[in-house]
Amino acid sequence: MTITRHLPSKILSDIVEHDGRIYLAGQVADNLDQGVRGQTKEILATIDRLLASVGSDKSHILSVNIWLADIRTRNEMNEAWLAWLPDDALPTRATIGVSDLGAPDILLEVTLCAAQKA
Amino acid sequence: MTITRHLPSKILSDIVEHDGRIYLAGQVADNLDQGVRGQTKEILATIDRLLASVGSDKSHILSVNIWLADIRTRNEMNEAWLAWLPDDALPTRATIGVSDLGAPDILLEVTLCAAQKA
Amino acid sequence: MTITRHLPSKILSDIVEHDGRIYLAGQVADNLDQGVRGQTKEILATIDRLLASVGSDKSHILSVNIWLADIRTRNEMNEAWLAWLPDDALPTRATIGVSDLGAPDILLEVTLCAAQKA
Repeated sequence: MTITRHLPSKILSDIVEHDGRIYLAGQVADNLDQGVRGQTKEILATIDRLLASVGSDKSHILSVNIWLADIRTRNEMNEAWLAWLPDDALPTRATIGVSDLGAPDILLEVTLCAAQKA
Repeated sequence: MTITRHLPSKILSDIVEHDGRIYLAGQVADNLDQGVRGQTKEILATIDRLLASVGSDKSHILSVNIWLADIRTRNEMNEAWLAWLPDDALPTRATIGVSDLGAPDILLEVTLCAAQKA
Repeated sequence: MTITRHLPSKILSDIVEHDGRIYLAGQVADNLDQGVRGQTKEILATIDRLLASVGSDKSHILSVNIWLADIRTRNEMNEAWLAWLPDDALPTRATIGVSDLGAPDILLEVTLCAAQKA
């Protein structure tokens, strides 16, 4: 079964495809001057782009992990999440408050596994 | 490959099935007046119910993540885990102490990936 | 689809194989007198051994989670990661700072999913 890697940085690939599944590396916002809502919107737009680049989309997401630097910002994150998500294609999700995402202004990080389009 | 979603809330599905695998959303206890042992027992009973609802069971679990609000409660959690787990079907597992699961009385959260029954 | 489990401890299996994929339990170093660089090197050598034991190798890794007790040690961890990783087979990765990995001298824990060799 072929493994296809896309968008390599020095230390990781942003996308790996294998056997019908698409794995995304942890996504954080580029513009860290935004609050949680803005960072979430930017990350979700990036996920749209990444999935589109391998022929899939958000209706094919299977499972999501959301790491929040401050779990009390969950409602704000969820507003951006709900505005983005297709009502009829909700993935599983875990939302975890963690101590540190690498810099004080990184407010969340998102990883996911999606299905390739049939 | 079909994606089947079950038990949608507003923001996620509790179960997603795809290509032989079952993904569960992060599970926390409903009764948060319990200690770690009680919350673990309740979550594991929920996992039994969720897996049964899609025709699988705990002997088909592949990989588990356990998020503990206080890693020092690990032994108490493990006692409930050991009482529940089939000896001959141990999954992989990571157990991580995190800063916050959303409310002070949420003592742990569990996610997992299982195989569908053949 | 067969589930094959390897290296069971009392509470988990270190390796689970299912349908073309290999899941590893959370790996920590045995020698905890080392700094992050040394612990990372030891864990990555363990991953080499575990993957080899089921006929795979690091060029088949799909997705990695790295839990760091102190995210500020990320650069040190990355040096060991870069020295180990094949340039042409970069997996996806998320690197998360967490509050506690079970003992003060456990500086990181690594989980991953890899593909079986064709």
